Formats: sequence, C-alpha cells, structure tokens
Amino acid sequence: MAEDTHTPDIIRPPQEIVDGLREVGAATCGGELKKLGIVDPTIGGPTAFTPGKVVAGPALTLQFLPIREDVYNQDEYSGPERQLHRHALYHTQPGDVICVDARGDMKSGVFGNMMLTFFQGRGGQGVIIDGCIRDFPIVKRDLDIGLWLKGVTPNFHTQTNIYPYAVNVPIGMNDTLVMPGDIIVADDDGVVAVPAKLGAELLDLASQHAEWEEFSRQKLLEGGHLKRYYPLSDEARPEYEEWKKQRG
Amino acid sequence: MAEDTHTPDIIRPPQEIVDGLREVGAATCGGELKKLGIVDPTIGGPTAFTPGKVVAGPALTLQFLPIREDVYNQDEYSGPERQLHRHALYHTQPGDVICVDARGDMKSGVFGNMMLTFFQGRGGQGVIIDGCIRDFPIVKRDLDIGLWLKGVTPNFHTQTNIYPYAVNVPIGMNDTLVMPGDIIVADDDGVVAVPAKLGAELLDLASQHAEWEEFSRQKLLEGGHLKRYYPLSDEARPEYEEWKKQRG
Amino acid sequence: MAEDTHTPDIIRPPQEIVDGLREVGAATCGGELKKLGIVDPTIGGPTAFTPGKVVAGPALTLQFLPIREDVYNQDEYSGPERQLHRHALYHTQPGDVICVDARGDMKSGVFGNMMLTFFQGRGGQGVIIDGCIRDFPIVKRDLDIGLWLKGVTPNFHTQTNIYPYAVNVPIGMNDTLVMPGDIIVADDDGVVAVPAKLGAELLDLASQHAEWEEFSRQKLLEGGHLKRYYPLSDEARPEYEEWKKQRG
Amino acid sequence: MAEDTHTPDIIRPPQEIVDGLREVGAATCGGELKKLGIVDPTIGGPTAFTPGKVVAGPALTLQFLPIREDVYNQDEYSGPERQLHRHALYHTQPGDVICVDARGDMKSGVFGNMMLTFFQGRGGQGVIIDGCIRDFPIVKRDLDIGLWLKGVTPNFHTQTNIYPYAVNVPIGMNDTLVMPGDIIVADDDGVVAVPAKLGAELLDLASQHAEWEEFSRQKLLEGGHLKRYYPLSDEARPEYEEWKKQRG
Amino acid sequence: MAEDTHTPDIIRPPQEIVDGLREVGAATCGGELKKLGIVDPTIGGPTAFTPGKVVAGPALTLQFLPIREDVYNQDEYSGPERQLHRHALYHTQPGDVICVDARGDMKSGVFGNMMLTFFQGRGGQGVIIDGCIRDFPIVKRDLDIGLWLKGVTPNFHTQTNIYPYAVNVPIGMNDTLVMPGDIIVADDDGVVAVPAKLGAELLDLASQHAEWEEFSRQKLLEGGHLKRYYPLSDEARPEYEEWKKQRG
Amino acid sequence: MAEDTHTPDIIRPPQEIVDGLREVGAATCGGELKKLGIVDPTIGGPTAFTPGKVVAGPALTLQFLPIREDVYNQDEYSGPERQLHRHALYHTQPGDVICVDARGDMKSGVFGNMMLTFFQGRGGQGVIIDGCIRDFPIVKRDLDIGLWLKGVTPNFHTQTNIYPYAVNVPIGMNDTLVMPGDIIVADDDGVVAVPAKLGAELLDLASQHAEWEEFSRQKLLEGGHLKRYYPLSDEARPEYEEWKKQRG
Repeated sequence: MAEDTHTPDIIRPPQEIVDGLREVGAATCGGELKKLGIVDPTIGGPTAFTPGKVVAGPALTLQFLPIREDVYNQDEYSGPERQLHRHALYHTQPGDVICVDARGDMKSGVFGNMMLTFFQGRGGQGVIIDGCIRDFPIVKRDLDIGLWLKGVTPNFHTQTNIYPYAVNVPIGMNDTLVMPGDIIVADDDGVVAVPAKLGAELLDLASQHAEWEEFSRQKLLEGGHLKRYYPLSDEARPEYEEWKKQRG
Repeated sequence: MAEDTHTPDIIRPPQEIVDGLREVGAATCGGELKKLGIVDPTIGGPTAFTPGKVVAGPALTLQFLPIREDVYNQDEYSGPERQLHRHALYHTQPGDVICVDARGDMKSGVFGNMMLTFFQGRGGQGVIIDGCIRDFPIVKRDLDIGLWLKGVTPNFHTQTNIYPYAVNVPIGMNDTLVMPGDIIVADDDGVVAVPAKLGAELLDLASQHAEWEEFSRQKLLEGGHLKRYYPLSDEARPEYEEWKKQRG
Repeated sequence: MAEDTHTPDIIRPPQEIVDGLREVGAATCGGELKKLGIVDPTIGGPTAFTPGKVVAGPALTLQFLPIREDVYNQDEYSGPERQLHRHALYHTQPGDVICVDARGDMKSGVFGNMMLTFFQGRGGQGVIIDGCIRDFPIVKRDLDIGLWLKGVTPNFHTQTNIYPYAVNVPIGMNDTLVMPGDIIVADDDGVVAVPAKLGAELLDLASQHAEWEEFSRQKLLEGGHLKRYYPLSDEARPEYEEWKKQRG
Repeated sequence: MAEDTHTPDIIRPPQEIVDGLREVGAATCGGELKKLGIVDPTIGGPTAFTPGKVVAGPALTLQFLPIREDVYNQDEYSGPERQLHRHALYHTQPGDVICVDARGDMKSGVFGNMMLTFFQGRGGQGVIIDGCIRDFPIVKRDLDIGLWLKGVTPNFHTQTNIYPYAVNVPIGMNDTLVMPGDIIVADDDGVVAVPAKLGAELLDLASQHAEWEEFSRQKLLEGGHLKRYYPLSDEARPEYEEWKKQRG
Repeated sequence: MAEDTHTPDIIRPPQEIVDGLREVGAATCGGELKKLGIVDPTIGGPTAFTPGKVVAGPALTLQFLPIREDVYNQDEYSGPERQLHRHALYHTQPGDVICVDARGDMKSGVFGNMMLTFFQGRGGQGVIIDGCIRDFPIVKRDLDIGLWLKGVTPNFHTQTNIYPYAVNVPIGMNDTLVMPGDIIVADDDGVVAVPAKLGAELLDLASQHAEWEEFSRQKLLEGGHLKRYYPLSDEARPEYEEWKKQRG
Repeated sequence: MAEDTHTPDIIRPPQEIVDGLREVGAATCGGELKKLGIVDPTIGGPTAFTPGKVVAGPALTLQFLPIREDVYNQDEYSGPERQLHRHALYHTQPGDVICVDARGDMKSGVFGNMMLTFFQGRGGQGVIIDGCIRDFPIVKRDLDIGLWLKGVTPNFHTQTNIYPYAVNVPIGMNDTLVMPGDIIVADDDGVVAVPAKLGAELLDLASQHAEWEEFSRQKLLEGGHLKRYYPLSDEARPEYEEWKKQRG
C-alpha cells in the first residue's frame, strides 16, 4: 500500500518469530529480554481494553505533537489526505500493530470507528496508544482488534491539544522507546516492544523454559513448598522424573 | 420536590432533544459541539463503571469544598437535613443526571447505597462524579443507574477531606464547566456536557451525518481503502448509489 | 511454616471476628472505624482486579525499597532463598492476606504465577499490592485468590527499581499504615485495614445496624422520600412496624 | 468601595488581632490551630515569591471556574466591568489579602501588573493564588506587596482554561477551605488561614509560649542536649532561673 | 559552523525583530499572540534559573527519546561525535537560544559545564530545557547565559532514561510546540515561542500599547480607581492630557 | 551520644574521604558512580534551600510512616522522648548529615527551629528531606546548616499524615536507596548518596580528571570548538602543552 503515501514503510520480521513470541506471551518476553540486556522493554501506561486478546506483530508507529494554530488548525474531516494518522494506517498489512505516541493525552481520541474499521479491514490486529481512542462503544461491539490504551474519550483526534506529525519514526511511549518494525507482544499483562534483531534469540531463550515448571505448578497448587518445587530442588527431582514417566 | 429544600431547582430541556442526543451518543455530541464553538465539552476523569449504559438527561449539580473543622465537623448520619448532598437528590425528577464536583478526591464516597437507591426510586438515571461512591458491590448488584466515576471507596462522603457545599450552581469537574440544566450525554466513551441552549442545534447537526457512512463502513471492513470510502470519494459514489438501490 | 524462614511471623486474630468482618464488608468497616477513631483506614490506590471477590484475613506484610546496585543486583531466579518476597509467602496460613508496600511502582511485577500458585496452595486468599503483579492472564485463568492491585505488568519483581527488603514489619501503603496482623477486609469497594485490637468492637458496632434499613431501602426504591425513610422518621415508624409484622 | 460592585464585601477582624498574629508568624499559628481543632489550616501549593515578606490580613476571595465558550469567551481587555477579578479588587481596604482559587492552573496569570498596582494603591498587602500571576519582572521591581503563588506565566488571566466566577464566597485552595474574612498569615514558611472567630483565642494561646524557649535555644546552639533543654527539664530549671536573673 | 555536522541548520529571523521582541518581554508577547490566533504560546514547565535575565533569539531545537540498550548504551564521554546534543550546539550563532525536549525528565542533566561553556563561547544566550542541566554551581558562578529549566541534577545527560535523538526538528516541550527558528522570548515570567512568520506583526501589535498606560499606572499606585484609569476612561482623559502636557 | 537512645548508631567513614568528596562535588560524584556500577545515586526531589552550601558527611537516617490513630495520636510536644525524630538527632556528631524519608509529604514539617538548632549545636552540617521543614524564616536567619528539601510548611512534624518510625535503617528517598552511613554529597546540583565502601575508589576515580580540562574550558569560553578541545584532540595537544609550559 506504500504507493498511497509519502511516508516510509517498515521492515517486517519473519512470521514464525512473530507467531512464536505470541505463544510466549508478554511476561516471558519482558523477563527474558532483561537477560538480553534490555532492562525495561514494557510500554507503561496503556492497559488492555479488550481483555483476553493476545497480539503479536510488527510496529507501525505514529508520533503526535502539540497543536499550534499557525501549524495545525484543522477540523475533524478537513483535508483528510493531509492528516498523517490516516497515512500511518495506509501501511497496514495483515498482522500489523499500530503504536502511537499521543503524548499521554487524555483529551483527544487518536482513532475513531471508521479508522479502526479500515485498520481491521486491512488485517491490522492491535492498537497501542499512549492516549485514547473514541467511539469505543461501537468498536467494542463491531470490531475484533486488540486495544491497549490509557483511556477512551468522546473527543476526536485533534479536538484539543495534539496533531499527528510523523509516521514510522522512532517514538517514545511513556518511558519506552518503540522503533518502527519492533515486534510488539501484548496481552492482559500489558505491552512489550521486542527489538526486531533480538526476536530470534528471544524466542530461543524463551522456549528453554524448564519442562519441570508444569510439574512444579501442580505441586505448588496442592500445597507443595516453594523451596522444594520452585526452582525444582535436587530432592524433588526423582519425584518429578516419576511424574514424567506416569504422564507418558 | 422543590418544597423539600431551600436549594434552587434547574430548568429541564425538552424531552425530545434529550432523547435525540441519547441516540447520537457522546462521541458525536462531543465532536459536533466543537463545530458549534465548544472546544472541549468532555468531562475528563470519570469513566464508565456500568459498561454498556447510555444515559442522557439534565444536570443537577453538587459542589464539594475542603472540610475545615470549624465549618463542618459532622458524622456520617448526624443532622441529615443539614447535609447538602441529600438536598441535591431531593430535586431528582425522572431522567435526571447528578453531576458532582468532588474535587477529584479519591478518599471519600460521595454517595452510598441508600442515597443512590433513593435517586433511582425518584427516576434518576445517571451519576457523574469527579471522585468516588461507596457501597459499589451493592449498587452494582441491586440498582440500575449509570455510573461514571473516578473510583470507588469504602469511606463515606465526609470521612476525610470534603463536604457538600452547594446545590445547582455552576461547577468545575476536572477541567470542564458544568452548568445546572446542561444536557449530560454519557456512554462507554465518557461524558459530554451539552449547553442546554445548544441542544436543538446540536441534534440537528448530528443527524446530518452522511447516509453513506453505513456503506463506507461495510466497505472498509471488507478491506476497502480509506481514500475511496472515507469520506466517500466521487469515484465511489456510483458504487454507493448502486448499493443503496440494492438495499431498497 | 515459621521454620522455613528467619523472618518473624504474625499473630492471627480469632477466626469468628475475621468471618464476621467479611460479612460486614469494607464500606461498613471503613465507616464504623471512623467512629472508633481511625479517620481513614482505607488503603488507597489498589483496586479490585478480581471483581466480586470478598476477602477478610490477617495481614502478612512485605516492604520493598529502591534498588541500588551495590545492595541488590540480582536476576529473577538467582539465589531464590535470599529473596524476601519468597519468605513473606512462607508464612502463609489458610485465610491469610499478603499486603505489599511496592512504593506505588508500576514497572515491577511483585509476584508472578508460580509465587501466587504457592500462595493459593498454602491457603492464602488475598493479595493487596501498592503496585503490580505479572502473569495476570494465567493467574486470572487458573487461580482463585482475590487481587487488589494498582496494575499488572510483564516485568518481574526486581526488573526495574525495587527489591523486597523486609517481612512482617509495619508498612505504608500509599497514605495508610498497615501493621502485620491487621485484619484486612477487601471487596469491590476497595481495601480496609482493621487494627486487630479493634476487631471485636468494630464487629459489635457494625452489627448494630438498624433493622429498619432493609425496610427503608425497599421504600426508597419504590420512590419513598429520604426524609421519611432514611434515617427512619417517627412518622414512618408505624408503617415500619406494620411491615415487620407482615413479614413475620 | 462597595458601591463599585454588586459583589459582597467581607467583615474585617479587629486590627490588634491581625497585628498580633503577624508577630506570631505562620508556623506558630498553624501549630497552635491544631490544638484548637483545625487539623490542617495550611494552604498547600503556593510558596513565597517575595522572600522575607510577612503578611497578615483579612481574606478577600475570588473563585475561578473552567472556561466554556458559550459562557465566557472574552479577550483580555473586553468588557472590563464584567470581569470579576476586577471586582474582587474593588473591595480592597488597607491591609487586605486577596486569596484566589485558580484551580491550580499553571497556564493563566490571574493578575498582571496593572491590577496589582491598583491593589497596592488601595492598601492591599498580600496575594495568595493557587495558580499564577503574570508581569512578575515588573511587579518584583516596582511593587511592594507579598506574593504567595504556585508560579508565574506570560499568559493573561483568561488566556487558556479559567475565568473569574465569584467574589467573596468560600473557596477551596488546594485541599484547604478559605472563608471570606479569614485572617491570612503568610511568611516564608507558607500560608495559614485562621478562622476569624478563632483569632483572639489563637493569639492568646500563641503568646503563652514558654519564656524559657529563648534560653533553651541558646543552650542548644552551644551544644546543649535536647533532653535537658527542650522542653526545659526540671534539672535545667535552676540553670534557667540563674540565666534569667543574670539577664535582668 | 554547518560544516561540522550532518544535522540541519535553522533560518534566523531579522535581528531588529528579535531585538524588538526582547524589549516587549514575554508577557506582552504571550498576550498579544493570542490576538494573532496562537492560544497558548507559553512553554510551561521550565522556570527562570537566572533571575533577571531577559533573552530573545532564534530556537535551535534538540529532541531526546527514551534510552533502549540496543539503540543507545553509551558512557558519558564515549564516541562524542555520535552524541547529538553536541551537534545541536555546533549550530550556535551569536544570540541563539537552544530549546530541548528532554521529556520532562528530572533524572538526567542535558548539558554540563563544558557544553554550556562552548555554547557561551559561540555566542549562545539562552537555554530552555523541559528537564535539567548539571554542574549548576559552576555554571552559575562562571557563565553568563540565561537558563530556563525544570531543575538541576548531578547526573549527566544519558545517565538514566533519555538520549539525544534529533536536531532542529519540531519538538514538543510540555504541551507546547516549538519549531526550529521560532523566536524565543524569555524572562522571569517564563518562556514564549513566537512563530517566526508572526514576529513582525507581533512586534507591530505590541508597540501599539496605549501611551496612557504609564499615566494610569502612576495613578493606580496613588490609589486611583481601576474604573477610571484602566483602561483609561473618558472622564480621566482630560486629566491624562494635562499630565502629558506637564511632562513635555 | 549513643547512651541517650535505644536506636542504633552508624559507622562513619574516614574523614579524608569525606573531605575529598566534598571537593569533588555532587555532579562528578554522581557521574563517576555510574562507572562504578551505581546507575542513579541521585536523591531526586529535594532541592537546595540554602544556595551555595556544599556539604559532605555520613548519613543518619530517619523513616516516617503514615499516621494511624491507634498507633500514633500525639501532640507536638507530648511525650517527647517517645518521638523518634528526636532520637535520630541524638546520634549527631560533627559533620553528620541527616536524611529523612518523609514519604514526599508536603503537609508536615519534619523538623522545626529547636530541633535544627540542637542539630547545629551538635555539629550537624546538612539536612536532606523528602518532604518539608517548618520555621524556615528563623532557620534561614539564625542557623548555618545546609538544607535540601522538597518544601517548607507552617505545620509541625505530625500535624497531618506522618510520624517518625525508625532511626538508622535503610530508607527509600523518592526512587533512591539511602543506607545509614552512606556518604552524602550535596550542593546546588542536588544530593548524591555515595555507598561508604565505594568512597575511596570514587575519590580516586574522580581525581583522575584530565588536567587539560581547565585549558579546554578557557578555550571553549574564547569560542574554541568542542571537537578540538573537548575531549582534547590530538591536534590541540601541542597547543595545550605550550599553555602548560607558559603557566609554569
């Protein structure tokens, strides 16, 4: 869809890595990334507005700036092709996740129903905003995309203090950097931005999770002691081996 | 019910305008009000605590001030007729919405179960508070009114720092002015205060929404392009005309 | 379980008082405690993440401090027996509630799935944190404990700025003091810390709630007036007596 | 000056009480008021912008509300007589202190140079604002009034979000109630609002400060021990008596 | 100095406009800009750390983003030529003002003594940061540039959470847009960003200030009434004419 | 003075290290500590209230907790020997610095004039509080200790929400850990907590500052280029050698 816009596209990571990280989930991605040197890859602020949804995909990014009337003084529907929040969505490919630096603003709804319908129609799967959307009642009822937001509002995207300034540039969301093409992993724990070049290594690391964890969890739930079962102690290992055997 | 209280009543808007605006919803009310010159009619802060509820009605208002012990030093149940949060509710008529400037306080529950039961018994339909209620577990289970709040708390209304000071006066809720008699429109997007004298014009404006929107939405959901369908382009108009004809 | 740890245990209150206060609920506990001289016993900040859960039980406490690399510079799983958030849980007895001063931190998940599974396995019933947990998707799906939190996060407990420093010491949660052994009462209204030595008196006070309240509530719901029914006026008393007789 | 305005005037306290409390200072007024039942009479937020100034006087009050364009949509100089921040100052008598609830707003300058010049010309001595003034460079250079503010700004009073709504009504400044006619005592420690009817009792209480305090302070400065000298112990009393005798 | 860096330079406004606006001062610039359609040109947050300084000049801009270790993981002095906060200063010409979007961060000192010495050596006159500098004791003692900051800190520029990302791009400072080449006017009232293309018109408008203001100010200081002297009433005009004649 | 209190004393570092670090100053201490692995040793929040003061010394610590009326319900002067903020000061030895975790509270003045006079009488040199003192007008006029505070207030130490709970324990100040016996270095840049065991190494590292810095600074002030002089380039080295020779 690059021909529809003058803004740059992103490079998308291999689908199998994206799919693997979706399986892994945000918490394990976040924890293991620390071992790879990324201290805090979590995008603080936005929380799950579509509980139960799990999303992983490459990040399209959109940066808002404060409005100043000599630079931006437009109505909701005026000169739509000059509005960059549209252009951000023109890049949408199936599986994409749009990440928006809305400056933490709680007074403007970055996207409304029509934009989000287009996004879903193009295959977009997740929306992460350091701010709000509008038309939440309709979006919740009619669409099937994942939403991680700071809130919702009746106001439209440029109604108060912010306007869309740039597409697919590095952005700051709260205290976290998001690069265009990062692999976003989001679930009910929140949102993690995985640097694309660390995706494969992270997936590898995350799948090394000890196979005894399922055994330990069961034991803990039955009242077993942390010291014995988590991490698995040498004393409990024969018990675990037996359990494995039983299970087949 | 005006005989029960020394506080002033409000002037209520025509029911058909209120009903019309409820159909319109908060997002369209908010967006269109900007075109009528009201930059930001949204009451920031309170969010939907009764998801799915849609409410429109005239605003009763209640203003809290900080407690000072020489001015207000009362217990929860002492001298009930001197407590103005009761008087605010004495004005309730069917369809009314009570709006409370609770100074953003998260430590006092402005209304509890009994007050809200009375409010519902009198026909009240919505409660908007820049602060909290208490008895939320019971209210959620037993009552059927809409709640837009900043939070809930076990504390009662004057337990910590605020007391009810005035009824049906202009109030500030967060950064937004609410006048007694404003038409409040609230849904899962949040809360909009519509100036009563703008109600008819707003309803008129809001109903001019292009009839092609339903068509466009369907097309966008199928993967159609924003440029073509939103707003409806000249290229797509014949397609739309055809769709209309098909539909009958 | 005291033999597993060098940290002090708590003194637990009589079970019948705990059970009684659970029946009473957070709002009445909070309101009545003011009459006993505790102005604001509510732990502000944490809200219900398991709606509908009602919990009462003695408080285990856990204090976090800011990380400094010369004092604490550990990985998620290194030297587990040196990590005091484990020791806090070693004290768990059936019905216990763990209260954590996590300094309001939104970037570290104090407990994850395995810790919380152990806690439930030992009979723990409630978790109150001035901060976050991680693994919320799994916890919500698999466990049955009550959670009152400020949020959730993919990060683990020492991933960013805090580490567990002390167990079963007095802690500050937001603006509220929690003593080890306090009786915590938590529901959808929020969390109240009841001083153990006030438990019996509070229970006594809370059960004196006028028996006319149920009558009044029914009347209010039918549109009866606050002045007549709440508190019950002398005029309405014969009506109430009649209602009681009818009811048997 | 009451003839210049339709807004109510205040009742001013006896001058000797005001003068006495100025001598006492904010810290002692604040501390002793707690003994008289006023837990927290301090106006948090505003700090001293004219270091060294000490002010005491009766409170004129001014309340701002959020701007809404249908209610207030004026320029800086339009219809000056309709602007209530002027009317608040019309009441100024020598020694008065103006207290403004500016909603904590950091974007509008409540008064500028001309207003403050008028205020000083009429004998006004202090300005307390939960917000900002503008023209601070000129005011600092040319005027001699005391200023306790949250900040300063180049913007004028209705440039962004607030407009003056009421004069000489009870106001909330941050978390503190200020009544018209309260005795304001302000110095580099901050601002205390003394309820007028407590003025005489407070002055009496504050002047009972033990005469040994000067002695104790001198001893402490020389390295004497708190236990011995503050409060004055029985052991140190003979030493104090001797010191008094020496002093004559 | 453009040859020293790959980052873009700015276009500087005519010196006489800059000099004129410095005379006008921040408050008048801010107020008059509203009449030209710029609602809120004030950069909120930074305050005067060099009281008495008045500065006007074209804006060099510098944008920080949150650090992520795969993108930026450098020491204070490593690879200096890759650090963009140096490049921002390479553009310095006499009279320039550097404006920094430091994301409101209070933990990193954007510039230290050496950088600021270089800036002064090149003729730079003002530093506006939505954040902090370090080495403030030395800078205050040895340099003569104007500083508008949110604070100071011992930490260096990338010690905690932010790194310099772009030079001479549009930036958001708090809630205000700053464009490269804007005319910054800063004094003890704060900082105003004047759009370059409005500079001449603003200067023209600001110099139309009524010549009676000086007269009115004197009268107000002597106790004259606002109604008569501000704005100058018809009744007072003959008095003013007389005053003008006297003055010569 | 340990005999006066049941609270633990601290271990004090060698005086020459303390004196050396005072020479070094907060900024260099903070920056160099990052190289020693302490990412952020700066105590955010408190700022210099005695501009120009430079202080270094071992940390006495004092921890406040939220007041609850069953645990702490005392007057300003009641039972002074039970008030732990006194005991913290009993440990004072010449050169000590008292660090207080006052929970960021802006409503209670941790120390007043008498306490601070005692502290100075005993040789205390610095006071660092994540909160406020009271009696600031007198303290500023009569005492000669350094103060780093968040603010000042007329209220006394337990007037609102906090009470002193522990002495010479590890405390969190804002986001920073302070251990009893840390070497505090404070000046107009702010406050750094140096881990005692890193003191010698830090002093060594800090004194390795290149001797060319003075030369470079002079050159930069004359308009020399950063690239050439900071850090000193090979091209500029002969010039520097010449400068050194000239200087003798």
